[in-house]
Amino acid sequence: MALNIKLGVSTWLWTSPFDTATVSLFPKIKEMGFDTVEIPVEDPYLIDTKIVSKALKDNGLSPIICAAFGTNRDLTHDDPSFHQTSLDYIQACFDTSAALGAKFVAGPMYSAVGKARLVSPEQKKIEWQRAVSNLEKVCRMAENSGQKIALEPLNRFETDLINTTSDLMKLIADINHPAAGVLLDGFHMNIEEPSIEAAILQAGEKLIHVQVSENHRGTPGTGQTRWEEFRTGLEKINYQGAVTIESFTPEIKELAGAVCIWRNFAESQDKFAAEGYKFLKNWSNQ
Amino acid sequence: MALNIKLGVSTWLWTSPFDTATVSLFPKIKEMGFDTVEIPVEDPYLIDTKIVSKALKDNGLSPIICAAFGTNRDLTHDDPSFHQTSLDYIQACFDTSAALGAKFVAGPMYSAVGKARLVSPEQKKIEWQRAVSNLEKVCRMAENSGQKIALEPLNRFETDLINTTSDLMKLIADINHPAAGVLLDGFHMNIEEPSIEAAILQAGEKLIHVQVSENHRGTPGTGQTRWEEFRTGLEKINYQGAVTIESFTPEIKELAGAVCIWRNFAESQDKFAAEGYKFLKNWSNQ
Repeated sequence: MALNIKLGVSTWLWTSPFDTATVSLFPKIKEMGFDTVEIPVEDPYLIDTKIVSKALKDNGLSPIICAAFGTNRDLTHDDPSFHQTSLDYIQACFDTSAALGAKFVAGPMYSAVGKARLVSPEQKKIEWQRAVSNLEKVCRMAENSGQKIALEPLNRFETDLINTTSDLMKLIADINHPAAGVLLDGFHMNIEEPSIEAAILQAGEKLIHVQVSENHRGTPGTGQTRWEEFRTGLEKINYQGAVTIESFTPEIKELAGAVCIWRNFAESQDKFAAEGYKFLKNWSNQ
Repeated sequence: MALNIKLGVSTWLWTSPFDTATVSLFPKIKEMGFDTVEIPVEDPYLIDTKIVSKALKDNGLSPIICAAFGTNRDLTHDDPSFHQTSLDYIQACFDTSAALGAKFVAGPMYSAVGKARLVSPEQKKIEWQRAVSNLEKVCRMAENSGQKIALEPLNRFETDLINTTSDLMKLIADINHPAAGVLLDGFHMNIEEPSIEAAILQAGEKLIHVQVSENHRGTPGTGQTRWEEFRTGLEKINYQGAVTIESFTPEIKELAGAVCIWRNFAESQDKFAAEGYKFLKNWSNQ
């Protein structure tokens, strides 16, 4: 049975940060066959939503908004001033998302990316509670903006808080708000989950976004990812959202350093996207 | 066709650092069915080789020696004093290995574990050359001690120098010494290699040691590792070395923090080893 999904690609495959001028990538993305473009919002003030909105319409692309969590955006930080910085940033992402006609903001919203260290059980509990209470606030902000959130587990080297779907479902149960949804990313699932299919079933109707690349962050279809299980899982929960390619170019040094990309995964980023699309189209149509 | 291999387990599954008293684990390891015990040498001076040697014989276990590379053991460091510290340490590992009747010292010998940062192409070249010239020295030391080395690629979050078998085979070609061999670890291969089987074939006769756990570092057989490909690869190169379980207990804080282990992977570490053995025995006998 064919999956009823939209295929997308993140502009991080080519550039960073996303700014208004990045819309120059849209015609190429559309031409490759994608329905959706994932817009990573590093700085909301670099994005003129009127111009981006028009470019989306002109190219027949729907947007997905993904938030970026550098070290100063951390809802679980010991210093509460970081929480306010994060909440202000997330509110700006909701504004951007609403202005562009997207339905949710995605990302590892609970903490800064790269915050992976051993803490005491007591400290872990404190950070968990901060994640819960601050994400409750975020969910109310989301509701007020007509949005949802898609929370993303990250692999162990990028966070010590939420590595698995199981961790995330506990967090979402504690947040207990209908705006809290799930983003699953195949790269992280390949490191952390015993089974991709079981992880997807566990997220169930809370799953509102999916990101993919390969086990090595390269072009979908060129690695060890268990794609059959991936598809079966999405089929079983009747997933109807987007599946977007998220990887990074080693040419953008700051971003590549943050996600530990030390090598090229394709001859060119265009080839990465085009061949990834071809593979995913075939995969989703089986 | 059954694989002609020895099955082993690293004492890191239970404790750290290995010292003379750790031999108290040997009877249990033997009773579980293992032929081989992997001895991680954090501090060679904690190991009385006479006592350990006797314990190995008493329990009918053969040893594999694995070296540990904390921040001050780094053959590619900008400060050459680190190189000498590393060479002295590695010589002590060769002495230990020879005294225990092992044939090689294994590990990511080229660099400190956790040294993963974006460097310029110029700096990368400098560090590569340091790895080559210092590992040439190490190979000569190995030869003089009747030993070999088994160099291990690590995943991108633990090193930026050697992530894949392909990287490692280039390094070994540059070292160009018969004492330089390969250690492949399933956990890292799951993140970095497009194909486990192809990686094993690429290492070929240079492959002298194999470590396994699951994609999530848990009990072999409980995750997403492509075990069929793993076996086919070893079969095709007629691998006759050991396959040892390497994982860590979250109870040993320093080690767990270094390898980003934030959760338990089994009810107990004994169960991890016993069930891992059962799976691997069956896997290798197919």
